[in-house]
Amino acid sequence: MSQDERSDGDLRNTGMRLRYDREWDYELDRVAAAVSERDATSVGLQFPEGLKRSAGGVADDLRELLPTDVTVRISGQPCYGACDLDLEMMRRTEVFVHFGHSPMKESSDVIYVPLFSNVDVEPIMAEAASELEADTVGLVTTAQHTHHFDEMREFLEERGVSVRTRKGDERLTHEGQVLGCNYASADVDADEVLYVGGGKFHPVGLGMEHPDKRVVIADPINNVVTEATTEQFEKQRYAAIHSAMDAETWGIIESTKIGQRRWDLAEDLVADNDDAYLITLDEITPDRLRNLGYDAYVNTACPRVTTDDGPQFHEPLLTPQEYRIAIGEEPIDALSFDTFHGTW
Amino acid sequence: MSQDERSDGDLRNTGMRLRYDREWDYELDRVAAAVSERDATSVGLQFPEGLKRSAGGVADDLRELLPTDVTVRISGQPCYGACDLDLEMMRRTEVFVHFGHSPMKESSDVIYVPLFSNVDVEPIMAEAASELEADTVGLVTTAQHTHHFDEMREFLEERGVSVRTRKGDERLTHEGQVLGCNYASADVDADEVLYVGGGKFHPVGLGMEHPDKRVVIADPINNVVTEATTEQFEKQRYAAIHSAMDAETWGIIESTKIGQRRWDLAEDLVADNDDAYLITLDEITPDRLRNLGYDAYVNTACPRVTTDDGPQFHEPLLTPQEYRIAIGEEPIDALSFDTFHGTW
Repeated sequence: MSQDERSDGDLRNTGMRLRYDREWDYELDRVAAAVSERDATSVGLQFPEGLKRSAGGVADDLRELLPTDVTVRISGQPCYGACDLDLEMMRRTEVFVHFGHSPMKESSDVIYVPLFSNVDVEPIMAEAASELEADTVGLVTTAQHTHHFDEMREFLEERGVSVRTRKGDERLTHEGQVLGCNYASADVDADEVLYVGGGKFHPVGLGMEHPDKRVVIADPINNVVTEATTEQFEKQRYAAIHSAMDAETWGIIESTKIGQRRWDLAEDLVADNDDAYLITLDEITPDRLRNLGYDAYVNTACPRVTTDDGPQFHEPLLTPQEYRIAIGEEPIDALSFDTFHGTW
Repeated sequence: MSQDERSDGDLRNTGMRLRYDREWDYELDRVAAAVSERDATSVGLQFPEGLKRSAGGVADDLRELLPTDVTVRISGQPCYGACDLDLEMMRRTEVFVHFGHSPMKESSDVIYVPLFSNVDVEPIMAEAASELEADTVGLVTTAQHTHHFDEMREFLEERGVSVRTRKGDERLTHEGQVLGCNYASADVDADEVLYVGGGKFHPVGLGMEHPDKRVVIADPINNVVTEATTEQFEKQRYAAIHSAMDAETWGIIESTKIGQRRWDLAEDLVADNDDAYLITLDEITPDRLRNLGYDAYVNTACPRVTTDDGPQFHEPLLTPQEYRIAIGEEPIDALSFDTFHGTW
């Protein structure tokens, strides 16, 4: 997320102290049991960016549970979701553990350790409940709070709120769960949605995906209730589209990451444009695109790289639909949020 | 290479105009023939960083030679040598082409297209010859000038110079060839070595690897003759070692890149130190290490990332030997240049 975006919308800059510390259960006994069961001599550990600093401590704790001849490896690759499994590490280790994200696809090759927050959600929900305007609301949350989902629903129902929920699609594990790239669980018959979770990353995406709904944020981590606004986000996207309209050459990016493979889409875009080139990448960074030197780029991989990190790039970076708008195939007011539905 | 390092030693900042443009023969007929022979529908192209901007033009030329149903992919992954093959792209394409580096290991899965410079080396060698002090000199060059190697040798011999050359080891393809990580070809019985090639990246490494030899640089690209100095390079390495001496935790980095795998070395270092953690990475960048949060790092992958890019990192980044110096296992004056000999 760009600094500007962060300054404006991110609660990390409010200076408020967190009410709760988060603590996590890494389920190391389960990992050790898997090592023993498979008689493995190598274990690979992958952590989301926010927990990478815990990796050394987790490795220490795990090594105490394991025979001394077992090698513990920590993935240093960037990791922002279950779409982002370290495939090289999976190939090289007999036991591979992915911490902190719910599985997009169950596999016997991966031990997924969900990390459920120990934060009590009720106090902030009590505050949020008084901000709700409708009698019928949708309810969504992130993976780390899904173990409290029934409790959240009951809390609202006890106060006479009619709660609408659904499990999004096959990309999602839990009822009511949202991902940065998937808000299908908010596709319910309610004009208002309560999001329970930290930060503004998810609720802003939710607001973009469902512009007709009011999104109330109950943030139990930063201890604030706010409303998601998407205006700045939209302005930024229109600016990117406009600056790409003059592009003569296009790099169409397809990702090698396992859960970000919209390869057919990328190939189709290239096939239809003689001035477009198919670029294969894992991480998409400003430096890598600058070295390639095209006038503008279309990202078919993680949409949040485009929308949240886009302003950091030296050239315009568009979603596939934004590209169609930029080249005149769709009207400008057709702009919608790029999400992955059911794609693996 | 850091800005400071670049300002001081790099000819790109001399403001001198290049005498010659470099042009390359991409051998696209050979690539097209391979596609036809294998009845392939996908081709992957990988370019070194300095030629990434040519990728679109090369793809255009290649597409004209290919049936329309063949998909041409361009690797956007960073690439600094033949140690750095895009393995994901190799897995995904029927014909995979690596441009600009000589093979470290021949493989039927890779079409290596060497890119030989069209630059005439004789004028700058004439200038360099008058700077030579010894009657017996070693002669080395980079892959892109190896097709002129016999000519260079004859030029010197005609002037009464006794020329000593060798083919380094199995990591190298050509007689007299150097790599950024391998100067075995300069291991000859001569106190003076003439390096013919662009820039100071290679001759500074050569000087570090062979501190007893005088290294004269004949640079036909920037059109200057200079002498390699390693003093600043050494100072920087000592500074990194000193700043790592207080480290309480260590990240030991092993690489997944095919030609940079010193895995046993990395595992041994971790096994001997309870405060060391084994980190698996492809690209090694300041941000990735910062997120991990150890006090200092040891890089068993590409040594030039450590020595040339090290100052850009937030924490000290050491070679394996520098690490042994920092923890007191070797004396400080034992410092030598980290190179790959015969390792694949």
